[in-house]
Amino acid sequence: MSLVRVHNFSVSLDGFGTGEGRSRDAPFGHAGERLHAWMFATRWWHGMTGRPGGSGGLDDAFVRQFTPGIGAEIMGAGKFGHPGWHEDPEWKGWWGPNPPFHTPVFVLTRHPRPPIEREGGTTFHFLDTSPAEALETAREAADGRDVRLGGGPTVIRAFLAAGLVDHLHVVVVPILLGRGVRLWDGLEDIEREYQVEAVSSPGGVTHVTFTRAGL
Amino acid sequence: MSLVRVHNFSVSLDGFGTGEGRSRDAPFGHAGERLHAWMFATRWWHGMTGRPGGSGGLDDAFVRQFTPGIGAEIMGAGKFGHPGWHEDPEWKGWWGPNPPFHTPVFVLTRHPRPPIEREGGTTFHFLDTSPAEALETAREAADGRDVRLGGGPTVIRAFLAAGLVDHLHVVVVPILLGRGVRLWDGLEDIEREYQVEAVSSPGGVTHVTFTRAGL
Repeated sequence: MSLVRVHNFSVSLDGFGTGEGRSRDAPFGHAGERLHAWMFATRWWHGMTGRPGGSGGLDDAFVRQFTPGIGAEIMGAGKFGHPGWHEDPEWKGWWGPNPPFHTPVFVLTRHPRPPIEREGGTTFHFLDTSPAEALETAREAADGRDVRLGGGPTVIRAFLAAGLVDHLHVVVVPILLGRGVRLWDGLEDIEREYQVEAVSSPGGVTHVTFTRAGL
Repeated sequence: MSLVRVHNFSVSLDGFGTGEGRSRDAPFGHAGERLHAWMFATRWWHGMTGRPGGSGGLDDAFVRQFTPGIGAEIMGAGKFGHPGWHEDPEWKGWWGPNPPFHTPVFVLTRHPRPPIEREGGTTFHFLDTSPAEALETAREAADGRDVRLGGGPTVIRAFLAAGLVDHLHVVVVPILLGRGVRLWDGLEDIEREYQVEAVSSPGGVTHVTFTRAGL
């Protein structure tokens, strides 16, 4: 069975998945790197960026679930590029020549363009469809493997509201952003469909997992 | 030094400290008892209500910090009574003949009335003042001991925004209420004034503590 999985999605204690004032120079707005500092400290991230060291405990164990078993990713337009990228025909995404996805990636946007092929197996496809239709397309591309839902908060919220997420891993970072885009709005009672666990790490964040009951 | 302390203040994962639709029959609105089930399961609560048993671990260790060293409590009008209690001259609070406070309690309300003395050392006083003025009054009554800030969310938020809280213990319950009164709104960056810790309990909640740096 091909699942829909969210991994390593960071929110502030007040529930913001990204800050205010996102721009080409500030992918997370005024949040800066504060939501992801826990991830940058892991051995996994160090390895991805060609450096030795990093923490090898709980945070690292969670972060490494990003890759195994994934055959495609779905992301929102804001994870692909800065506000207004669709007006720049040369924009190829924030992810460099060799993006960390290594699968087809489906970008939800009201401004589709032809696919962009990058090194390492990542090809960005652009879809102007509903979450359910995007998922159908991504599942086909994943060829039996799971589909990762990459964010941002608006996209994850839409998929959660539509009942399309099987496994949700949220990392609560103990900062108060005060403004930005909230993850949890309008999701009353969705936890009832899931087995929920929370575990705090020595790194200071709390990993919360929602796993669909009966999976 | 007399500190201002918040203990056992429960919020949902989406940040609501109370639900919507509060009434005389529903002190927490549609949240019901879900925000406090973790507390009812502790040995401390069992003891308070004259029953044996209860969990004796992490949740119990936190919950027991409610009483020691406290000389007065400040609470909002909504913690004293249902919406509209000020129009009922006979209303003596939700807390029964022997309330669990055992100190002077200062109720912030725009409708002050004469003090109400209850058994066990609890006297409710009614103040129509700012947080800072209420704290001055409560500190005097506490006679060198600490002042507990009892909630609800609106009152705690106001004291946090005014920089008046020294120790904040919030319990994040993994439910999504979707609506109600939020704790965290408008508190951007306050964590910078505190040492913050988070620890999840086997009971499923996460205890987050903010302790003022340098205390």
